[in-house]
Amino acid sequence: MKTKFDEQLEEMHVELIKMGSLCEQAITLSSRALLGDEKSQVEQVYSVDGEIDQQEREIENICMRLLLLQRPFASDLRKISAALKMISDMERIGDQASDIADMVPYIRFSEAKSKVHIEAMAKATVKMVTDSVDAFVQDDLNLAQRVIDSDDEVDDLFNRVKNELIDLIYAKDIDAKVALDLLMTAKYYERIGDHAVNIAEWVVYSITGVHKSNE
Amino acid sequence: MKTKFDEQLEEMHVELIKMGSLCEQAITLSSRALLGDEKSQVEQVYSVDGEIDQQEREIENICMRLLLLQRPFASDLRKISAALKMISDMERIGDQASDIADMVPYIRFSEAKSKVHIEAMAKATVKMVTDSVDAFVQDDLNLAQRVIDSDDEVDDLFNRVKNELIDLIYAKDIDAKVALDLLMTAKYYERIGDHAVNIAEWVVYSITGVHKSNE
Repeated sequence: MKTKFDEQLEEMHVELIKMGSLCEQAITLSSRALLGDEKSQVEQVYSVDGEIDQQEREIENICMRLLLLQRPFASDLRKISAALKMISDMERIGDQASDIADMVPYIRFSEAKSKVHIEAMAKATVKMVTDSVDAFVQDDLNLAQRVIDSDDEVDDLFNRVKNELIDLIYAKDIDAKVALDLLMTAKYYERIGDHAVNIAEWVVYSITGVHKSNE
Repeated sequence: MKTKFDEQLEEMHVELIKMGSLCEQAITLSSRALLGDEKSQVEQVYSVDGEIDQQEREIENICMRLLLLQRPFASDLRKISAALKMISDMERIGDQASDIADMVPYIRFSEAKSKVHIEAMAKATVKMVTDSVDAFVQDDLNLAQRVIDSDDEVDDLFNRVKNELIDLIYAKDIDAKVALDLLMTAKYYERIGDHAVNIAEWVVYSITGVHKSNE
């Protein structure tokens, strides 16, 4: 028979999966809007970001109830503390998706965006977020590790975009304002990649009990 | 007579104060190095950032021991959960100080930095970090509120630096690479301001029980 504790732990798990899927939505929507999909609206991104914030509060409350209700075993405490950490990263992914949405009006119809590797950054980070959430849902250690490994790729893409922008400014082939906005956008993608790596590291911790930073 | 729980709660408090003071050090050292103080070394920033990371682990362990040892009252649980949130923000302040230190070799001796309001950003955010830590140490609700209010000032300064950089690029009065590096540096300061605000909001929560996001 399931205890009250087991039930609430399961509820925490379900709500985390929901929050992860909202993060995927936020970053996919903002990337579509940025890359010029006519039907995509930035308002949707802000609204999903709001849902993500609410979801963070909801999960925090579940975790606090779990901690107040009983003295959890070490392995359950590990799951709860990993959840508390993970939702901070998910919440920031929502924020960065909103930051990208803020840039959309200035970049969406600019030709300059096709001259730098911003679409590659968008694709790579959407995949990292999706994979980190899948790794959590499926308790998949290998997938979590692949997310962690793919961080270098996104960092390289950021440096590439930065160098492309410098060249475009030198060649007077880009408006200075658009160049700075594209750099900020690339940085937001890089940060989303960092948060996906953090989530993957918490997945590893909740499966193995070992967090990278303690190795 | 003090219980074991009270002792560990006090230990948590002392270690948090230590971590806050390390954050102040990291950001002060990186700002000095950036603004051209000959004696400042970026290596010191990286070393303090490393201490901050260790301190986060240490405080996390104390919090977990507190949660495992006993079933805390709601008010103590609030302090412990505020501590767990606060150290995430402190850890990121250390990261951003390191990010600024990374920029030092490219900006330190460039004249361009005096043409934009980067020093004003450095001063404003160092003050925010110091004040947020003081507000925590002294349980000072008014000071925490002042930190929260000063965030707009830093956001305005970021936009000002961005516009100054755009003008300098138009006027061909700055190297494109330096311009992009200065923009990133300004963004790191803006983020540090955001984290100081988060810390101040957790101070408000641990005193009043009300967190801004739940209002």
